[in-house]
Amino acid sequence: MASWCTAADKAALAASGLAEAAVSVICAGDARRRLDSDTEDDYTKMGIANATTTIFLLFATALVFFMQSGFAMLCAGSIRAKNVKNILLKNVLDAAVGAIFWYLFGYGIAFGVPGDGNSNRFMGEADFALGISAVGPSGGNDWIWFLFQWSFAAAAATITSGAMAERTQFAAYLGYSALLTGFVYPTVVHWAWGGGWLSSVPWKKEDGDKSLAYHDFAGSGVVHMVGGFSGLMGAIMVGPRTGRFDAQGRPIAMPGHNAALVVLGTFILWVGWYGFNCGSQGSATSAADAVAIGRVGITTTLAASAGGVTSLFLNYALYKVWDLIAVCNGVLGGLVSITAGCAVLDIYMALFAGFIGAFVLFGSSKLLLKLRIDDPLEAFPVHGACGMWGVLAVGLFAKEKYLGDEDNDRYGALMGGNGRLFGVQLLGCVAIILWTCGILGPFFFVLKQAGLLRTSAEEEAAGLDESKHGGSAYNNA
Amino acid sequence: MASWCTAADKAALAASGLAEAAVSVICAGDARRRLDSDTEDDYTKMGIANATTTIFLLFATALVFFMQSGFAMLCAGSIRAKNVKNILLKNVLDAAVGAIFWYLFGYGIAFGVPGDGNSNRFMGEADFALGISAVGPSGGNDWIWFLFQWSFAAAAATITSGAMAERTQFAAYLGYSALLTGFVYPTVVHWAWGGGWLSSVPWKKEDGDKSLAYHDFAGSGVVHMVGGFSGLMGAIMVGPRTGRFDAQGRPIAMPGHNAALVVLGTFILWVGWYGFNCGSQGSATSAADAVAIGRVGITTTLAASAGGVTSLFLNYALYKVWDLIAVCNGVLGGLVSITAGCAVLDIYMALFAGFIGAFVLFGSSKLLLKLRIDDPLEAFPVHGACGMWGVLAVGLFAKEKYLGDEDNDRYGALMGGNGRLFGVQLLGCVAIILWTCGILGPFFFVLKQAGLLRTSAEEEAAGLDESKHGGSAYNNA
Amino acid sequence: MASWCTAADKAALAASGLAEAAVSVICAGDARRRLDSDTEDDYTKMGIANATTTIFLLFATALVFFMQSGFAMLCAGSIRAKNVKNILLKNVLDAAVGAIFWYLFGYGIAFGVPGDGNSNRFMGEADFALGISAVGPSGGNDWIWFLFQWSFAAAAATITSGAMAERTQFAAYLGYSALLTGFVYPTVVHWAWGGGWLSSVPWKKEDGDKSLAYHDFAGSGVVHMVGGFSGLMGAIMVGPRTGRFDAQGRPIAMPGHNAALVVLGTFILWVGWYGFNCGSQGSATSAADAVAIGRVGITTTLAASAGGVTSLFLNYALYKVWDLIAVCNGVLGGLVSITAGCAVLDIYMALFAGFIGAFVLFGSSKLLLKLRIDDPLEAFPVHGACGMWGVLAVGLFAKEKYLGDEDNDRYGALMGGNGRLFGVQLLGCVAIILWTCGILGPFFFVLKQAGLLRTSAEEEAAGLDESKHGGSAYNNA
Repeated sequence: MASWCTAADKAALAASGLAEAAVSVICAGDARRRLDSDTEDDYTKMGIANATTTIFLLFATALVFFMQSGFAMLCAGSIRAKNVKNILLKNVLDAAVGAIFWYLFGYGIAFGVPGDGNSNRFMGEADFALGISAVGPSGGNDWIWFLFQWSFAAAAATITSGAMAERTQFAAYLGYSALLTGFVYPTVVHWAWGGGWLSSVPWKKEDGDKSLAYHDFAGSGVVHMVGGFSGLMGAIMVGPRTGRFDAQGRPIAMPGHNAALVVLGTFILWVGWYGFNCGSQGSATSAADAVAIGRVGITTTLAASAGGVTSLFLNYALYKVWDLIAVCNGVLGGLVSITAGCAVLDIYMALFAGFIGAFVLFGSSKLLLKLRIDDPLEAFPVHGACGMWGVLAVGLFAKEKYLGDEDNDRYGALMGGNGRLFGVQLLGCVAIILWTCGILGPFFFVLKQAGLLRTSAEEEAAGLDESKHGGSAYNNA
Repeated sequence: MASWCTAADKAALAASGLAEAAVSVICAGDARRRLDSDTEDDYTKMGIANATTTIFLLFATALVFFMQSGFAMLCAGSIRAKNVKNILLKNVLDAAVGAIFWYLFGYGIAFGVPGDGNSNRFMGEADFALGISAVGPSGGNDWIWFLFQWSFAAAAATITSGAMAERTQFAAYLGYSALLTGFVYPTVVHWAWGGGWLSSVPWKKEDGDKSLAYHDFAGSGVVHMVGGFSGLMGAIMVGPRTGRFDAQGRPIAMPGHNAALVVLGTFILWVGWYGFNCGSQGSATSAADAVAIGRVGITTTLAASAGGVTSLFLNYALYKVWDLIAVCNGVLGGLVSITAGCAVLDIYMALFAGFIGAFVLFGSSKLLLKLRIDDPLEAFPVHGACGMWGVLAVGLFAKEKYLGDEDNDRYGALMGGNGRLFGVQLLGCVAIILWTCGILGPFFFVLKQAGLLRTSAEEEAAGLDESKHGGSAYNNA
Repeated sequence: MASWCTAADKAALAASGLAEAAVSVICAGDARRRLDSDTEDDYTKMGIANATTTIFLLFATALVFFMQSGFAMLCAGSIRAKNVKNILLKNVLDAAVGAIFWYLFGYGIAFGVPGDGNSNRFMGEADFALGISAVGPSGGNDWIWFLFQWSFAAAAATITSGAMAERTQFAAYLGYSALLTGFVYPTVVHWAWGGGWLSSVPWKKEDGDKSLAYHDFAGSGVVHMVGGFSGLMGAIMVGPRTGRFDAQGRPIAMPGHNAALVVLGTFILWVGWYGFNCGSQGSATSAADAVAIGRVGITTTLAASAGGVTSLFLNYALYKVWDLIAVCNGVLGGLVSITAGCAVLDIYMALFAGFIGAFVLFGSSKLLLKLRIDDPLEAFPVHGACGMWGVLAVGLFAKEKYLGDEDNDRYGALMGGNGRLFGVQLLGCVAIILWTCGILGPFFFVLKQAGLLRTSAEEEAAGLDESKHGGSAYNNA
C-alpha cells in the first residue's frame, strides 16, 4: 500500500503524539486511496462509463448504418440504369423492414436470455419486442446495444440484394429481408455472440472453461458469410440476367452505369467499417478498450489497403487495365477478410489477410462465372468467400496474447497453437453455410416454383423501374 | 494547498491534542474529499464530464450538419436537371449565411441571458456575436452548444428551399435565409428551449413549478414546423411552377431528375437524425444520459421504419406502384413525427407515430395538390404537417415516467394524463404557426409585390442554372 | 457522510490518543483526497481518459478519412466525364497506397523517437512498420494516433490529384503518392508536430524554452501547403490540358461534368473538417479540452462561411453570376485559411481569415491562368495559397491567451506581439515550399524527361477511362 504522505508529513504527525499505526492509517493509500483495486467498478457505478460506452456505440451505430447508403450507392452504380430505383428501394427497406423484424423477433433470438438466466444454446427466447429486461443490468447500454446490432442485421440483409439485382421480384425480396433479419441472421448471432453453442460461454457449468470459443470479432462469418451465402442461394435460384452469358456460357460484360456511385459507396463502406470493427469492442471505458479500438482500426485499414492494391496489380498483370471497380471490390474484400480477426491478428498480418483476400475474391469470382452464376455485385466473392477466409485466418494467425486464452494453447495454428481453434473456426463456417443455405435455398426454391421469384422477361427487358416503380430513376427532361 | 476541513473540523482535531502542523497535514487537500454523495457534480469539476459531453455534441453536430448535404442531394435529385445548381447553392448558403447570422443575432436571441439572470420570456437579449459569457458556467460546453444549435438553425432554414424550388429568385432566398436563421427561428428556440414562455422554466419565481412545460425534445415544432410552414408561405406566394397544373387544376407529374441522389439524401438525413434526436439529450455524463440516448436512438429508428413501410404499402395499395420516392418521404415523415416525442414515448408507440405520420404525409400532400400549391419536395407535408403531428403526439402519448412530472398529472392525454399537456402542445403549434406565417407570409408577399420573388418565365423555361448560375450542372462534352 | 476508514483503522487512531470527534474528521469523505493538483494523471491511470481520447480520435479519424470521398466526389465532378474513373482510382489509392507507405515509413519519419529519447530534429528514426513502441507510454492512444495521422497523410496526398487531373500517367501518380505519404509529407510533420526543428520543443535542453514554436494547429502548412505546392509542381511539369488555353494563352472554360458531385464533395469535406481541426486537439479528457474543441469548431465554421459568402459576392460583383463552384471553393479556401489558426484566433477573426482567404483564392487562381498553369481543381489556390495565408495569419492574429506563451511576447504581430512569431511562421512557409518543391519538382521533371509523366495526346483526347481503365465511368445502355 502506497502512502500519500511525505516524510515531512509523517514527522509532523508523529511529533503531535500519534503512534506509528495511526500515522499509517492517516497516510494510507495512493491517489486513488482505498479504490485502487476497484476502479472499473467504481466508474461503472458513477455512470461515466455508461456514458462513454453509449457515445462510442452510438457513433459506431451511425457509421454502420451509414454503410446502408454505401451499399445502396455501390449497388446502384454497379447495375444498369434501368433497375436503379428497384435496388435502391431494396436497400432502404432492408433497413426499415429489418428494424421492425429485428425489434419484434431478431434481437430476442440473438440476445434474449430468459428470466432464469439459462441461455438456450441454439436461439434466444426472451426480450422480443424489447418487452422485458432492456434496461437491465448494464444500465442503459442495452438500448444502444440493440441499436448497434440492428445496424449489423441491416448490413447482413442488404448484402444479398446485390447478388440478385436486376431480375428479382420485389415482394419476394421483401419476404427474404424479413426472414433474414427476423430469424436466419439472429440465430447465427446467438450462436457466436449471444451465449450460443459456438461462443466462448462454457457449454455446462461443470465443464469449467470448456467452450468452443469460436472467434469472430466483428462478423466475417456471422454477418458477411450469412449475407454472402444468402446471396449465392438467391443468385443460383433466380438465374442469370438475360444476356449475361452467351450460348457457349461465356460471360458478356454488363458494366454498371455509374462508377462515381460505386466509388462513393466503397468509401462510405470503408468509413463505416471503423464503426463495424472498432465498435465491436463493445465498450470504451478503459485503457484496454483504448488499445483494442486503436489496433482494430489499424488492422482494418491495412487489410483494406492491401486488398485494394493487390487487386490493382493483379488485374493489371492479367488484363493491362487499371481496373477501378476491381480495386473497389478488392478494398471491400480486404475489409471482409479482416473483420473476424481484426482484434487478434498482428498488424503486419492484416496486410497479409488483405493480400490473400484479393486472391480469394478473384478466384471465387472466376469460379462463379465458370458455373454460370450471375452475381452482379460480386456479393458472394466479396462477402461469402472473403468472409470464410477471414474466419479461417483467425484459426491460422490469431496470436495468443490477443486472445487471452493462455491455458488451452488454443490460438492460431501457424502461430504455435494446437489447431483446435482452426477446427472450431472451420466448424463455425460449416454451420453457418448449412444453416444459411439450408433455409434460404429451399425458401428461394419454393418462391421460384411458385413463380414469385423472377420478374417476367418483358419486365426485365424494359427495366424494373419502368415496370414496377413508376418510371426511370433518371429524367433528363 | 487548500484545506477540506471546516473550522469546526480543525477545532475537533486540535482538541484531541494534535499540533497545528499535524492538523495541517491531515486537512491538506481540497473540498472534493467531501463530495462522495455528489459524484455528478464532482465529475463536472474534474473536467471529464465536460470532455464527454463535448465529444458527444461534436459528434452530433457533425451528423446534423451532414444533414445539410442530405437535404442538398434530396433537393437536387427531386427537381429537374436545369435547376440543380440553383438549389444546391441555396443549400450551401443556408449553412454559410446561417452561420454568420446565427453568430451575430440568432444565438443571442435563442439563448442569451442578460447579466442579471432574468431571462426575457419572448426573446433572448445577450451573447450576440458570442460577445459575452460564452465560456461561462458550463465550462466550455457553451461553445459546442453554439455549434450544435447552429446545425439545427441551418436545417430549419434549408427545409424551405425545397418548397420554393425551380422558380424563386436567388436574392430573395438569401434574404429569407438570413431572416430565418437570424430572427424567426431563434425566437421560437427561445420560447421552447431557451427559458421562454413555452418552456419548462416557471413563469415567475413565486409560481413554483407552474410553467407551460411545452415538450419538444428535438424540435418537431421548433425546427420542422418552422421550416415547413415557412416553405408553405413561400410556395403559396411564389406560385406553382409553370406547367405543374393543367387548365383544370389537375397536377401534372414533374418527376425529379435523379432518384439515386434522392436516396442518398434520405439515407444521409436518416443517419443525421441520430445526431439530431440523440444529441438533443445535451449531455453524456451519466447512466441516465446513456439510457436516454439509447432509447431515443431506438424510437427514432422505429418511427423512420414505420413511416417508410407504411408509405410503401399505402402507395402500392392505391396505385400498384412500389414507389421509391414515397418511401423516402415516408421515412422522413416518420422521423419528423418522432422528433418531439423521441424521449417520452414508449418504444412501441414510436412505430405508431411513424405509421400515423405516413398518413399525415399522404393526406397533407394530396391537400396541397387540391389547393394547387406546388411544393416540389413535399417540404410542408414532411416537415410542417408531420412536425405538427409529432408535437401533438407528445400531448397524447407521452408517458409519465419519462417526463418526470409526477406532481401535475401532466402527461399524455391517452396515457392517463389530464389533458393539460395536450393543451400546451396545441398552444405551441398555434404559436409557432402564427409567428412563422405572420412574419414570412408578409415578407414573401412584399417581395412578390416588388417583383423580387419569382424568376421571369423565360428564365424558368431556360432553367435557372443557364440563366443565373453560369451554365448547366451537367456537361457531357 | 461516508467514511473510508475500517474499524481497525479507527481503532488505531483512537489508540493513538485521538478523540472520537477527531477520528471522524480524519476518516470523513472518500478517496479522492490529495488529487486536486493531479487529476489528469489520475484519470490517465484509471483508463477512462484513454477511452475518451480514443473515442474522440476514432471519430475524428472517421471524419477525416471520409474527406477522402469528399475529395473524390469534388474531383470527379470538377472534370470531364471521360476521365472520371482515372481520378477516382487515384483518390482510392491515395488512401490505400498511403496507408501502406505511412505504415512502413511515414509514421516512423513523422513521430518515431529512438530508444534513447533523443529526437532527431530533421526526421524521425524509429517505429517503422509500427515495430517498436507503439503501445507505449500513452497506453493505447499511440495506435489511434497512428490512424488519425494516416488520415491526414492521405488527405495531403490526394490534394495533388486534382491539380494534375485529366492528363497524367497513372503509374507516375502512384509513384508520387508513395513518395509523398512515405517521405515528403512525414518529414514536414516531424518538423512541426513530431519534435523537429520547427516545433515547440526546445532545440537543446540548456536552451530552456527557446524553441521556434511554429504554430500550425491542424496543418494549413503541414498538410495543405505540402499538398498544394506538390500539385503546383505537378501542374507545371505535366503542362495544361490540351485546349485549355488558346493560341494567345487565354483560358478556355472546361467546366466539370457534374456539379452535384462537387457540392456533395464540398459538404463532405466541410463535415470532415470538424474531425480535422477539432481532432487536432489530440485529447478529450478535461474542461480545457472541451473549451478548445468547441472553440475550434466555431472558428472553423465561421471561416468556411465567410469564405463561401465572400466568394459568392465577389464573383457576382465581377461577373453577374451566382457561381456555385466558386462558392464551394470559397468554403474550402476559408477552411484551409483557418486550419493553422483555429485554436489561437479570436472567433470574430475567423470571419476575417475566411474573408481574406476568398481573395487569396481568387487572386492566386487568376495568377495561375495568367501563367498558363492549368490546375483543374484549383488545388494550388485552395490548398497552397490559402494554406500559406492561414500560416501567416497566425503570425499576425494569434492571441496571447490562447497560445499560452506569456513569457516571450511571441504572439500575433498585429495583436501586440513582438513579430517573432510572424517570422517563425514565415520561415515555416519557406521551409515547406523549398522542401516540397525541391523534391517533387525534380521528381516530376525526371518523369517528364523519361516520358512517364504525361499521357499521349490520343489517350487524352479519347479520355483516360477508355484508354487505360477499361471503359467509361458511365454506361447508359
